[in-house]
Amino acid sequence: MKLIMNAAGRMVPDEVNGIKSVPFRGVNGYKPEAKKASPPVRSCVDYPMDGNKVLPDLKEALIKAGIKDGMTISTHHHLRNGDAVTNQLFDIIHELGIKGIRWFPSASFPCHEHLIKYLEDGTIHHIEGSMNGPLGRFTSYGKMSGLGVLRSHGGRYQSVQDGEVHIDIAVIAAPTADPFGNANGVNGNAACGPLGFALADSEYADRVIVVTDNLVPFPCYPWHIQGNNVDFVVKVDTLGDASKIVSGTTEVTKSPDRLLIAEYVAQFIEDAGLMKDGFSFQAGAGGTNLAFVLYLKERMKAKNVKARFVRGGSTKYLVQLLEEGLTDYILDGQTFDLDGVRSMRENPRHINTSPFTSYNFHGKGNFASIVDVAVLGATEVDVNFNANVVSHSDGLLLHGIGGWQNCLYSKCTVLAIPSFRDRIPVIVDDVMTLCAPGELIDVIITERGIAVNPKRTDLLEALKGSSLPVKDIKEIKDEVEQICGGKPIPPKRDLTQPVAVIKWVDGTILDSVFKVL
Amino acid sequence: MKLIMNAAGRMVPDEVNGIKSVPFRGVNGYKPEAKKASPPVRSCVDYPMDGNKVLPDLKEALIKAGIKDGMTISTHHHLRNGDAVTNQLFDIIHELGIKGIRWFPSASFPCHEHLIKYLEDGTIHHIEGSMNGPLGRFTSYGKMSGLGVLRSHGGRYQSVQDGEVHIDIAVIAAPTADPFGNANGVNGNAACGPLGFALADSEYADRVIVVTDNLVPFPCYPWHIQGNNVDFVVKVDTLGDASKIVSGTTEVTKSPDRLLIAEYVAQFIEDAGLMKDGFSFQAGAGGTNLAFVLYLKERMKAKNVKARFVRGGSTKYLVQLLEEGLTDYILDGQTFDLDGVRSMRENPRHINTSPFTSYNFHGKGNFASIVDVAVLGATEVDVNFNANVVSHSDGLLLHGIGGWQNCLYSKCTVLAIPSFRDRIPVIVDDVMTLCAPGELIDVIITERGIAVNPKRTDLLEALKGSSLPVKDIKEIKDEVEQICGGKPIPPKRDLTQPVAVIKWVDGTILDSVFKVL
Repeated sequence: MKLIMNAAGRMVPDEVNGIKSVPFRGVNGYKPEAKKASPPVRSCVDYPMDGNKVLPDLKEALIKAGIKDGMTISTHHHLRNGDAVTNQLFDIIHELGIKGIRWFPSASFPCHEHLIKYLEDGTIHHIEGSMNGPLGRFTSYGKMSGLGVLRSHGGRYQSVQDGEVHIDIAVIAAPTADPFGNANGVNGNAACGPLGFALADSEYADRVIVVTDNLVPFPCYPWHIQGNNVDFVVKVDTLGDASKIVSGTTEVTKSPDRLLIAEYVAQFIEDAGLMKDGFSFQAGAGGTNLAFVLYLKERMKAKNVKARFVRGGSTKYLVQLLEEGLTDYILDGQTFDLDGVRSMRENPRHINTSPFTSYNFHGKGNFASIVDVAVLGATEVDVNFNANVVSHSDGLLLHGIGGWQNCLYSKCTVLAIPSFRDRIPVIVDDVMTLCAPGELIDVIITERGIAVNPKRTDLLEALKGSSLPVKDIKEIKDEVEQICGGKPIPPKRDLTQPVAVIKWVDGTILDSVFKVL
Repeated sequence: MKLIMNAAGRMVPDEVNGIKSVPFRGVNGYKPEAKKASPPVRSCVDYPMDGNKVLPDLKEALIKAGIKDGMTISTHHHLRNGDAVTNQLFDIIHELGIKGIRWFPSASFPCHEHLIKYLEDGTIHHIEGSMNGPLGRFTSYGKMSGLGVLRSHGGRYQSVQDGEVHIDIAVIAAPTADPFGNANGVNGNAACGPLGFALADSEYADRVIVVTDNLVPFPCYPWHIQGNNVDFVVKVDTLGDASKIVSGTTEVTKSPDRLLIAEYVAQFIEDAGLMKDGFSFQAGAGGTNLAFVLYLKERMKAKNVKARFVRGGSTKYLVQLLEEGLTDYILDGQTFDLDGVRSMRENPRHINTSPFTSYNFHGKGNFASIVDVAVLGATEVDVNFNANVVSHSDGLLLHGIGGWQNCLYSKCTVLAIPSFRDRIPVIVDDVMTLCAPGELIDVIITERGIAVNPKRTDLLEALKGSSLPVKDIKEIKDEVEQICGGKPIPPKRDLTQPVAVIKWVDGTILDSVFKVL
């Protein structure tokens, strides 16, 4: 392995876990000449004619699926920090004496700290997937055998579809399923909303195991996962802690600074002329995001403007927009609270979407680029609008990419961020980890002012006459450095030792995360 | 090409249109060692970022799709005999001077007689797909350049999925679509119900063109066809004659003989012990089928029995079952009347299914084999329970296979047929064209008696004490020959010249249709 400089000026490894990598070639700079992955043709002859694929337990299912050393095993993260299935899965794999697994989750959470012992004893060779919290920290200090690979939701779908990642066995925790393997996330004790993060797994894995604590008679409908792609079904007592799978409620921020950011975002959307009948926006689940939705809602009502669609992750605030007739549809890839789950279950206009529909960059278009305005967060932004979402200035890998990179393709991408956190500047000279090329970030909104990417002369023009505090990004940076007493102090890192890589939406390598000493 | 005898004792060509064929090897006798078809990886870079894929007309879309001589062009038959799009499509192809097209419809109808001139002038080389009426007759007399290939709905999905048939351009008529290409069949003037017959085409074709007369703003939902698989969208004035796309109403038979058959079917289902809480059945749209649903409904009400699901093609009679709470779900692949379309549009328990979910034999199971009882028709049945559904005793190829072969895998398959038609026996020594191996037919119900396949000793046992006229099939045959004045008179055929082949659900060749002189 050697490090080479990519088109973003970042040093990235020329191979990742033994596979030659393609360095980032610029936004829209890489088009593969390739065919999609091609799973084996199966035959009904090998499946029970009565449709009953239920096996006694997960261990038997893994054995029947042919588990062996070095395989790639995938899971999804719709159960979030309440997931009990993944830990049980690796307890069984360990018990079976299997080694060298590539774990391919759509993301991992603090509850998966349990797996560190399996990273240490060689049961798991390495993780490809976002690592929120303890596993990210473990990786940052160079303790994982292989390189971590972080992909966006769309990039994960792309990597499976394109055959970059071949999944041997997919284990899909499903809040409701039938014996044929049809499954959804909207019913049952562990109801989590949609199951789209497992879609690619169900379509392309050699073997697919559905694990449920709510087995219903065929047909389980809606079938977010289709039984025709499923090999085995396993019934367990519980998928995990329902209270950690979805929040009972989500709440807006109470911080005056964050509320100010939220107000600026709503005002920006109106003043820039984006808030018009039939428009669309994406909002996440952070406290600032929730607050901007409330402010925007008031502006929409005042001007009698209705959205065509809004994109989640959904919360009760988006659900209220739908129920009050302020949007025709919610197009939703994950639900963050119980109102979101209920709405998706009951309201046909609250639509289940997937990384395929919304984010896959190697499809015939996707939904993300149709959205008029996406409001996102970031851990750091630099003066060239480049942004980071996985690490802070301490260099530790603590967050996943999620759909964030994919959403950058919206017609107007806004980063709504505090200008500093814990007295450390968020606006910097150069981001610790590059996750977003600056040319895709249109506006940065902080409590100290709004910076518009100079490329977006149309937005700058539209904002003439607005009362918003539009400033040069360097001006905001200088102000923040004065408050914080200077630039962030760089951590000690070994810049010859990457511990993880950040993929761009097209599968190329955008940046490396280096070992923190 | 030479003819060889397959495992059913039928003479079939060893190659079909230049491709080596696999002769039928017995029910469940053939399992391919293969990988699924692998379409090209696309990139969002090549699609409009605002999601607007609308082109001015179909001609431009075909040119942009790279149409050229010898390509395979697919269409679906959800518009049935009201389809205007396919004829326009081939008018354009002819105008462009393109030759040698393999037309791959899911089925053709009498309205497509218009295309005979293009078969004659070489625009179309041959048809692979069911040919109802004039095109079947044309083919039967040996007038088509290539061999016709008839597949079941499931077999068509299987052939595309397995890469046996590579579709260059799919043209999907859609009663409603958005500019991104999301499309459905439940809204718009040409509403036809689901669009499942085009699913494989959208997933695997190199280029996909959606043609609609009802363009709505993104998102068109439900999206039976996903815009992420679509290259171009074309708006036309009309997709065709709505009154021929679905019947305004479907009506039960008035024939006393057919009503008697229907009564026997309902009684059989109850007497054989199949009508129990949570059971399932499949009913088609023929007059006899509609009548048996009405009789069965009365028996279900009398015994307070509720079905878990019923399978369409749906009609108002199935919709009534759903609306009266006599079934939890309709799982539906096509809607035959306006009540069916309305129900699918409005009732979340009237579920859109596809040949992938229901019929594909090269999946990890399918729905068809889960069904407790399937009631089907046939053109002929022989004394070994082998059945024909595409031709009559005159040898002419006049009907498609539809989902018929796929449904044979139900737990109990009933053929409900008159014992003769137009004074020609339907029960024969040997069927003209073999479409169903006798081992999959469990019961034959005619107005003159019921014959149970001797293999089904369980059913024979269950019917002891029933008042149904259970007879030996040969007994019924003898009776019918006496009435009709003997066996059917065989047509003059050239048995060295196949004009079409009948595929089995696994892609092997079950029988040939020979040239009628």
